[in-house]
Amino acid sequence: MGKEQILEMLDQRQFKELKTELENVHPVDIAELMEELEEKQRILVFRLLQKDEAAEVFTEMNSEMRQALLSGLTDSEIKEFMDEMYLDDAVDVLEEMPANVVERLLMATDEETRAQMNALLNYPEDSAGSIMNVEYIAFRKEMTVEDAILKIRQVGINRETIYTCYVTEQRKLIGVVTVKDLLTTGDNHTIEEIMETNMQYVHTHDDQEKVAGLISKYSLIAIPVVDNDMRMVGIVTVDDAMDVMEEEATEDMSMMMGIAPNEDSYFQTSVWEHAKSRFPWLLFLMLSATLSGLALDHFDYVVAVMPILNSFVPMLTGTGGNCGSQSSTLIIRGLATNEIEFRDVFRVLFKEARVALVVSIMLAIVNGVRIMIMYGHSYENAPLLAVVLGLTLVCTVLLSKTIGCTLPLIAKKCGLDPALMAAPLITTLVDTGTILLYFTIATRFFKI
Amino acid sequence: MGKEQILEMLDQRQFKELKTELENVHPVDIAELMEELEEKQRILVFRLLQKDEAAEVFTEMNSEMRQALLSGLTDSEIKEFMDEMYLDDAVDVLEEMPANVVERLLMATDEETRAQMNALLNYPEDSAGSIMNVEYIAFRKEMTVEDAILKIRQVGINRETIYTCYVTEQRKLIGVVTVKDLLTTGDNHTIEEIMETNMQYVHTHDDQEKVAGLISKYSLIAIPVVDNDMRMVGIVTVDDAMDVMEEEATEDMSMMMGIAPNEDSYFQTSVWEHAKSRFPWLLFLMLSATLSGLALDHFDYVVAVMPILNSFVPMLTGTGGNCGSQSSTLIIRGLATNEIEFRDVFRVLFKEARVALVVSIMLAIVNGVRIMIMYGHSYENAPLLAVVLGLTLVCTVLLSKTIGCTLPLIAKKCGLDPALMAAPLITTLVDTGTILLYFTIATRFFKI
Repeated sequence: MGKEQILEMLDQRQFKELKTELENVHPVDIAELMEELEEKQRILVFRLLQKDEAAEVFTEMNSEMRQALLSGLTDSEIKEFMDEMYLDDAVDVLEEMPANVVERLLMATDEETRAQMNALLNYPEDSAGSIMNVEYIAFRKEMTVEDAILKIRQVGINRETIYTCYVTEQRKLIGVVTVKDLLTTGDNHTIEEIMETNMQYVHTHDDQEKVAGLISKYSLIAIPVVDNDMRMVGIVTVDDAMDVMEEEATEDMSMMMGIAPNEDSYFQTSVWEHAKSRFPWLLFLMLSATLSGLALDHFDYVVAVMPILNSFVPMLTGTGGNCGSQSSTLIIRGLATNEIEFRDVFRVLFKEARVALVVSIMLAIVNGVRIMIMYGHSYENAPLLAVVLGLTLVCTVLLSKTIGCTLPLIAKKCGLDPALMAAPLITTLVDTGTILLYFTIATRFFKI
Repeated sequence: MGKEQILEMLDQRQFKELKTELENVHPVDIAELMEELEEKQRILVFRLLQKDEAAEVFTEMNSEMRQALLSGLTDSEIKEFMDEMYLDDAVDVLEEMPANVVERLLMATDEETRAQMNALLNYPEDSAGSIMNVEYIAFRKEMTVEDAILKIRQVGINRETIYTCYVTEQRKLIGVVTVKDLLTTGDNHTIEEIMETNMQYVHTHDDQEKVAGLISKYSLIAIPVVDNDMRMVGIVTVDDAMDVMEEEATEDMSMMMGIAPNEDSYFQTSVWEHAKSRFPWLLFLMLSATLSGLALDHFDYVVAVMPILNSFVPMLTGTGGNCGSQSSTLIIRGLATNEIEFRDVFRVLFKEARVALVVSIMLAIVNGVRIMIMYGHSYENAPLLAVVLGLTLVCTVLLSKTIGCTLPLIAKKCGLDPALMAAPLITTLVDTGTILLYFTIATRFFKI
């Protein structure tokens, strides 16, 4: 159903009909629809939702909508759907709310839940603890498969995932059992017999990127989170892992273009916020471009003698920059997907050097042909010019690909984010190098 | 256990012990270990694995290792573990194998399986059909929950996922039931009572990116794949969706740096392949840089009169390029995550324009200060120079951010991949624009 339909039903106060209609719409889609409604209408629609549905819809909204909505609801209404929310979602919601709202929300929940929420809120941002869910199913190793299935039937309904269950002993994690194992083995086996004892797990303070990586690498539906004494404290589910992957990819791409990463989405971020996250790198790069400026300055006598040389500078610096960015991107991505490590530095260098040679020689040839076509008849030094440019191209590409592939590796080694060492920085470095190379070669060949 | 340990056990022919040791190592890790072994040793180790484990290990290997291994195994050995592989994995394996090997593998499997594989092989690359798994659990709507659970217990063992089951009628998909639903409702309900009828699904020819998107958006464990008549043909599971997400992110990043996307990993790709995937864009950009060259040529008389102007060109083009890349990256990512659509073009333009103004004015001021410090005492025209550069900065940033945010949107509208319209292309376009702006402004102010 679409916006118009809802609005019409609201107009004609067909609340009962709308209520039933909404039951067949996925919460994700309801949230999207509500974005297009006005505040009054939103509250109306929200009140028509069933408790559990309301909780999911609320989880899917962006923070502005949430705050607006909360201010329109009574505490008892808030309590109703907060109780329906999965803890980790509830905490995500709290994390982006202003303090006073957080207080109001925490008030709305019962004591035990509030305690757990506060615990989650205290884990460092982007840590396993901060994205984990504390509602999971735990077995004792003595239980039989039958007991286990029975337990799932009793408590399963309000657990986010029931498909991997955890075996604990004095709260310590000792094994994992999947529902698949349970359903495909005889009722009388004990959990101990069928549990997987060397399972994947993460610590509360591990980075969320690591968590997502493991879930993806071992194709898990959920991964257990333990504290330093191997005590089980929660699980991270695959759907959260997917969000993390997307978030991290966006973060890397932004950084690679010199944008300070930003949790909010494009439209949610204010103009001022956008400016703030883009300005620092631009400033740094603008100032460091002074170097290439000085390099040009240093050779202005050459330009004075042979103005034509000047017109090839953008082509050379551009090509150098692009080559460098290509290498750095491949390496940064390789590091992110754990395919490349620092110890590969020489393998990478050797490979990039060879690629650089192949590519640059091809470019030099094409460019040479182009020079002969454009200047061959008008300019007697054209062949020599072609050689100078060709030689410069080869040197620049070699230089830029070397810089492009080493910088990210070094950054990684120093514990920095490799994505910092991407296009913008490399372009600036390469510009200066290219200009120096170019004019040094030119002065030699043209004896200036 | 590590490489050394394995080698030692192989040396001392402690095969039985190694066999038991390996049973406790995750297939993913065994595959990684085998990468470090020599071919003979690999085959030895592989033969020690249990059938089902061998299948998983084989799935995790890279194609070279697979081919080498296959050539060392007998047909019956191949058959043994092929039968254990999940169909979609088996097909992925076939897709990267040379024809003769494919033939050999297909020979090794029974007729029915072979038919299904051939079906999968014929779906277009990166389509839902090509990544789907044809082994899923289907119910009739008349079945009771009890029957359903019983069926799972019987056939579940050799299904990749049992957690979402599908309700079909004359092979048409009519509903979805999760094991959670089954376990948390009474045995006597019928499937029809508890099944979800408005479920998410995709068509065999839908792009894998769409599939992953839906799985992530609706937090699914698997999504059903149907043909044009709504007949159920398979499922895509969340672990495959995660691989797709990673693959697509890598693809976008490569494209954004002018690298033709490439399925293989960095080291698996030969130098020649690397060169081939990087050369075309470099060539195109090098040639289009002729434009900025001509622009400079056109103004060489200005440079002759005021050489100092020339030394600011790299700074200006660089800043312009970086601003453009920032905008295009944010838009490309926004499009990829479905947050931005073509209809938002004016909202985006308006936002970027304001960001551009804020950023560029700040840059202009800082740069002005820098000019006064560097040239204030030595050069009487310094203030005017600062103004000219400041004005150019504002214009360039505005221009480049406009180009940077519109191109990807237009590409999307034309059905091209927005990622094509990234850094390299924008830099080249912006270079020319910047040079023209700069010298036009300069000639006016300095009356050249």
